[in-house]
Amino acid sequence: MIYITRRERFNAAHRLFREDYSDDKNLEVFGKCSNPNWHGHNYELFVTLKGEINPHTGFLVNLKTLSKIIRETVIAKLDHKNINLEVDFMRGKLASTENLAVGIWNELQDKIKALGADLHCVKISESENNSAEYYG
Amino acid sequence: MIYITRRERFNAAHRLFREDYSDDKNLEVFGKCSNPNWHGHNYELFVTLKGEINPHTGFLVNLKTLSKIIRETVIAKLDHKNINLEVDFMRGKLASTENLAVGIWNELQDKIKALGADLHCVKISESENNSAEYYG
Amino acid sequence: MIYITRRERFNAAHRLFREDYSDDKNLEVFGKCSNPNWHGHNYELFVTLKGEINPHTGFLVNLKTLSKIIRETVIAKLDHKNINLEVDFMRGKLASTENLAVGIWNELQDKIKALGADLHCVKISESENNSAEYYG
Amino acid sequence: MIYITRRERFNAAHRLFREDYSDDKNLEVFGKCSNPNWHGHNYELFVTLKGEINPHTGFLVNLKTLSKIIRETVIAKLDHKNINLEVDFMRGKLASTENLAVGIWNELQDKIKALGADLHCVKISESENNSAEYYG
Amino acid sequence: MIYITRRERFNAAHRLFREDYSDDKNLEVFGKCSNPNWHGHNYELFVTLKGEINPHTGFLVNLKTLSKIIRETVIAKLDHKNINLEVDFMRGKLASTENLAVGIWNELQDKIKALGADLHCVKISESENNSAEYYG
Amino acid sequence: MIYITRRERFNAAHRLFREDYSDDKNLEVFGKCSNPNWHGHNYELFVTLKGEINPHTGFLVNLKTLSKIIRETVIAKLDHKNINLEVDFMRGKLASTENLAVGIWNELQDKIKALGADLHCVKISESENNSAEYYG
Repeated sequence: MIYITRRERFNAAHRLFREDYSDDKNLEVFGKCSNPNWHGHNYELFVTLKGEINPHTGFLVNLKTLSKIIRETVIAKLDHKNINLEVDFMRGKLASTENLAVGIWNELQDKIKALGADLHCVKISESENNSAEYYG
Repeated sequence: MIYITRRERFNAAHRLFREDYSDDKNLEVFGKCSNPNWHGHNYELFVTLKGEINPHTGFLVNLKTLSKIIRETVIAKLDHKNINLEVDFMRGKLASTENLAVGIWNELQDKIKALGADLHCVKISESENNSAEYYG
Repeated sequence: MIYITRRERFNAAHRLFREDYSDDKNLEVFGKCSNPNWHGHNYELFVTLKGEINPHTGFLVNLKTLSKIIRETVIAKLDHKNINLEVDFMRGKLASTENLAVGIWNELQDKIKALGADLHCVKISESENNSAEYYG
Repeated sequence: MIYITRRERFNAAHRLFREDYSDDKNLEVFGKCSNPNWHGHNYELFVTLKGEINPHTGFLVNLKTLSKIIRETVIAKLDHKNINLEVDFMRGKLASTENLAVGIWNELQDKIKALGADLHCVKISESENNSAEYYG
Repeated sequence: MIYITRRERFNAAHRLFREDYSDDKNLEVFGKCSNPNWHGHNYELFVTLKGEINPHTGFLVNLKTLSKIIRETVIAKLDHKNINLEVDFMRGKLASTENLAVGIWNELQDKIKALGADLHCVKISESENNSAEYYG
Repeated sequence: MIYITRRERFNAAHRLFREDYSDDKNLEVFGKCSNPNWHGHNYELFVTLKGEINPHTGFLVNLKTLSKIIRETVIAKLDHKNINLEVDFMRGKLASTENLAVGIWNELQDKIKALGADLHCVKISESENNSAEYYG
């Protein structure tokens, strides 16, 4: 069993808030992250796969192929976008790093399986101090 | 003559566009950065001062004092904000990294002089690949 | 199950030595790290929690809250301190990165549980080449 | 149980290709990495050990000792070398990051055991975006 | 006057040696870097431009345009290549970081001028410890 | 004219204080950095040289030679030491990053000249947020 990790990056705007909360209540619960005018991040996405090394290539999966799939499946939807307003798989969800990790997992899982590997972990770094990991 | 640099960070939303351009024209000139729904970044700000070492302290300027001034003067206005909509010193300006560096320079210059040092450089990193520097 | 990680930093002095060893024996066992005049590091602390995403917030735990608890509980005791002389939870222990990870785990465990999450990992980086992780 | 990680670095040339493939087929399967004139990387190697903290030293294993063993056992064979042509433990294997992680694991495992610890993970970063991990 | 910097990356093989030296003499002068079987690096290239901010765009130069020019002009020639054997602008030159910085400067200078800016600096990082800068 | 930079690292303890100040006064002026029990840092030292490329080697100066000189001249005196108590060239000086940069410059200047290059800059990073540069 081997594990490989590909890092991809995207820049996006988001806001943490509940529609059923007042602005004051949102500020109390979500702090500065609830700013109605949005803020944003340089997100780093780390996708880890596990499986057997293919003896014909020495690869678990060709990282170029993996990169292409991640870019087409999730980066194209997220990069230079507003996560609350424009990302289909985040519709109706709080735009937290935790939910983003779960959402990206769900988008990628089947496409990774089709490559002959298992999705092991989706990690999102929102800043140099904050990150979330989801293992399914 | 000695130079000291303090790094501070802020997260913000922005959009590159001209009001006198159509959406298509904005897309042509500014690419994905013109998204009307905003996107954002983890900005890194590097403020460099120059001057003589104070023989009583061994400092050019106490970096805690410098950090406090940068945070109160510019980070408080930028962090978790929308640069186009909410930052007074960027009003009426294109929210580019270049203009941001110049804007921050103008906000800081007098306050640095009051500390007994000269502002030497304001550098902004918008991503791990892109940055701008202004020397006045 | 989701995992979140918060990074905090502290600067501290320490020394690796045993009182029951001679200086020569300490030098033999602990090398330069046994210098009786101390040396120090910029430590990075990574605290990882696991648990269920709270559907009302999208968070496992608000990272601001987590940061506050880590700072009050352990950073306040460690930052700009001498680990051998001044840190209550390291008293009588060798000031190694391994023992520091265990010590910080013990300080944090109950406070994390009170937040409604489980402490999963305490990781300490002493330098860009050396780190230790403790999982309880 | 504690985990410690030591990072070491090496620079090497390699090429991904199969002798039983034509140049065109190699280009199709391995892309630019199949260049017959070689290319290279600054590899980062992270070796993680697990075991009990030695109460006499506060260490799982002295990281200086671990560093020395990693350097003598694998870095000396890899640094400033051609992985395909010059590295005994990679002979006859595709010079992928995955195979390199497995190869380094096999070289190190017994020497780590002789230190009184268990080898837990060998991680290789080939670039800031690509890495592989092997846990035996 | 504003300065902007774009980072690009490439992986390449190289060797430091003189044809008029024996292998022993090359080893004496260039150390491990003279290995006849090549070694390689993950190079980081930082290209800095200076000039006036365009009031219509807020840019000195659109960094996407700059990135495209750097990639087409130099990265395409260097990435996954052997610097000694395959890079036209390094032909007949020692493949040192210093000469690479000068070579890249010469390739880029006119194309930067055509963008309406001046090339200010070409910086190459060969490893986290070693870099070279050329200012023309 | 070419510029090359070598990074070296050292870990040290220090304290910012004046003997002619009371503990309270030291705390007021130097903050936590005045802790009488010391604290410490992982310092990064960047030494930049300038000069002409030697046409016989392609080097300004062999970076291995430069590294050896920096290590023998300054790192050996600083690494795992107490800057206030044990470093001859810092005796009688406040152990600030600014004074350290000047002190290291003075130690290195002649030895760099003997290599056939000019010392251009000594930069010290005390943390990821704080640094000082000296140009003579």
